[in-house]
Amino acid sequence: MTASIPPYQQPDSVGIITPQTQHFDQPIELSSGRTLSEYTLVYETYGELNVDASNAILICHALSGHHHAAGYHHEDDSKPGWWDHYIGPGKPIDSNHFFIVSVNNIGGCHGSTGPKSINPETGKAWQHDFPHLRCRDWVETQRALMQVLGIKQWAAVIGGSLGGMQAMRWSLEYPDELRHCIVIASAMKLTAQNIAFNEVARQAIMSDPFFHNGYYMDHGVIPKQGLRLARMVGHITYLSEHGMGEKFGRELKSGNFTLGTDEEVEFQIESYLRYQGDVFSDSFDANTYILMTKALDYFDLAREYSDDPVEAFSHAKCSFFVASFSSDWRFAPERSREIVDALIAANKPVSYAEIEASFGHDAFLIPNQRYEDVFRAYMQRVLGE
Amino acid sequence: MTASIPPYQQPDSVGIITPQTQHFDQPIELSSGRTLSEYTLVYETYGELNVDASNAILICHALSGHHHAAGYHHEDDSKPGWWDHYIGPGKPIDSNHFFIVSVNNIGGCHGSTGPKSINPETGKAWQHDFPHLRCRDWVETQRALMQVLGIKQWAAVIGGSLGGMQAMRWSLEYPDELRHCIVIASAMKLTAQNIAFNEVARQAIMSDPFFHNGYYMDHGVIPKQGLRLARMVGHITYLSEHGMGEKFGRELKSGNFTLGTDEEVEFQIESYLRYQGDVFSDSFDANTYILMTKALDYFDLAREYSDDPVEAFSHAKCSFFVASFSSDWRFAPERSREIVDALIAANKPVSYAEIEASFGHDAFLIPNQRYEDVFRAYMQRVLGE
Repeated sequence: MTASIPPYQQPDSVGIITPQTQHFDQPIELSSGRTLSEYTLVYETYGELNVDASNAILICHALSGHHHAAGYHHEDDSKPGWWDHYIGPGKPIDSNHFFIVSVNNIGGCHGSTGPKSINPETGKAWQHDFPHLRCRDWVETQRALMQVLGIKQWAAVIGGSLGGMQAMRWSLEYPDELRHCIVIASAMKLTAQNIAFNEVARQAIMSDPFFHNGYYMDHGVIPKQGLRLARMVGHITYLSEHGMGEKFGRELKSGNFTLGTDEEVEFQIESYLRYQGDVFSDSFDANTYILMTKALDYFDLAREYSDDPVEAFSHAKCSFFVASFSSDWRFAPERSREIVDALIAANKPVSYAEIEASFGHDAFLIPNQRYEDVFRAYMQRVLGE
Repeated sequence: MTASIPPYQQPDSVGIITPQTQHFDQPIELSSGRTLSEYTLVYETYGELNVDASNAILICHALSGHHHAAGYHHEDDSKPGWWDHYIGPGKPIDSNHFFIVSVNNIGGCHGSTGPKSINPETGKAWQHDFPHLRCRDWVETQRALMQVLGIKQWAAVIGGSLGGMQAMRWSLEYPDELRHCIVIASAMKLTAQNIAFNEVARQAIMSDPFFHNGYYMDHGVIPKQGLRLARMVGHITYLSEHGMGEKFGRELKSGNFTLGTDEEVEFQIESYLRYQGDVFSDSFDANTYILMTKALDYFDLAREYSDDPVEAFSHAKCSFFVASFSSDWRFAPERSREIVDALIAANKPVSYAEIEASFGHDAFLIPNQRYEDVFRAYMQRVLGE
């Protein structure tokens, strides 16, 4: 970063970005059997689409993500988009070369049609009645946007965690419409432990007395305590034990361990978690959180391919890049190796990088030299083709 | 187990046990600086104290434990005490040879003086005003009981998890009053991750609207949802990922993954967790849960020994047996190896067993042949001396 130049004017920043909106009037039939008669997607783009529309990249977001992946919305934004370290001029996903599309998925709470939107049939907010979604529904809506943008084939579909699940689903559903599939810190299906943590988060939200069976907007309240707890659980599990120990150890927020008093001793980790929970519960929608965790739990790449991942991937035509992080225990390297093993058995081209990193599942969002190097190297292959 | 004989009459069962009560009139000054003017301990004993009172064993319980470690309270009890597999005639802690004392600690909710007891100064239940406790306070009250029972020296003090912390504290506070210290699945202090999980559990309880700042008894309610969530988090983290996968996988409770419907898919792990949470929240006290997790977080064996575990253990005079379980990630084998390393550096006799086990932290409660074998072998050494 060059000193004295504001962040949004740094040469490697995509700068000030204005989200765009696309409305779709044609109904979409969802995998649940229900139909959205219309919907809106909010998205951002970085870089320029080339003449033959061959340089387009789709970014798929994870559980609590959204369309704002890079750059700043305002000159005084204190924070850039969630993947700014990896998207921008000269960065691994290089906006000098690629046209990068980042969409807020339906069901979300950042502008695309979701539980907070108006159900046109009732004239009231959907809230808990918003249809269940699966990754394939997001693939369909992303594809609708692709067509509006005049893109026939993605150079790459890229996602981490739940985003990686969408990328894999793309490779099976529309094998001719992407050349590369990049799957970071993901899995072909969740483990029982992962489902269990998601269930605790949902129960925390649903047992909040302000949840009102998911119709809290009707009551003018939000289940803030439930969301806060859900985020605290998520936050612990997306970090590694080691990373948390390095960052906080057993440091106290203030005071000391003096015996002989009955004061509350407070560890830094405690106030940090409460703070993270508070911030999240002020900005995220509870019904979206439930819906997104359910989509994670339900995802099972090979379910309709006789539970055989090799058979599933035999339908893919693209090349794959898979990456995992050593300390990620919710989407452990073992899960990524299962993907790689299935791809190899299905005779598909795949590169795999297992990256040493301290920060658990969150490592996929955090600066890390080796991650950056291998990601950049792979993206240059994407560019070269 | 011999067929057709009821469980409480099995030859390796301690049989029907009646808890005993001991009231103490002398005040106890607690490590917080506050004083309990009187208190009661509920405890059980198994086996007979020998003439020279040299065969007494103290069992220290963990977070949600109590005095009922072995045997049955009634002929129609469906479940024995929490450590019945390891305590009884011919079992590792052999009631044919040892006089085994198992105490419900103060602060608990199973009969000993705790938040649900009457504060003699106010005539009302203590509730959230019950003093903070540390492991050393439990050591003091256990020692008061020891004196009443006419025991001058324990053959061994034994505990798992938070119980292991009490056992270690005994070895430093009263080095002449135990010959063996048995520390299972424990740690010299918690990691930041462990504190973080405890904090989520506490926040779940404290944000329950029925918590009323801890004075829920005054309102005739209990913070059941909060306790339920706390237990669900605990339950996941005390199991291993692998154990949970083996037990539940992605099995559905009922129905199937039929696409084209909007029904809720429910995994078995989800209903199991909810059930466990429900059972616990009906039987455990919220203030006790907060108090016990705080004692866990505060515990730091070497804090007053210049933060030097070797200096701390240099005060011990007993022999040590330390055991850990391969899949325990809340009290990982690494934590036990730190104990062993410090003991070796302090030139203390120590045996260490790292046991292959699938069930995470809960493994210390569960049948396991190697665990049983090494535990039995060590207890024969205790007996032989």
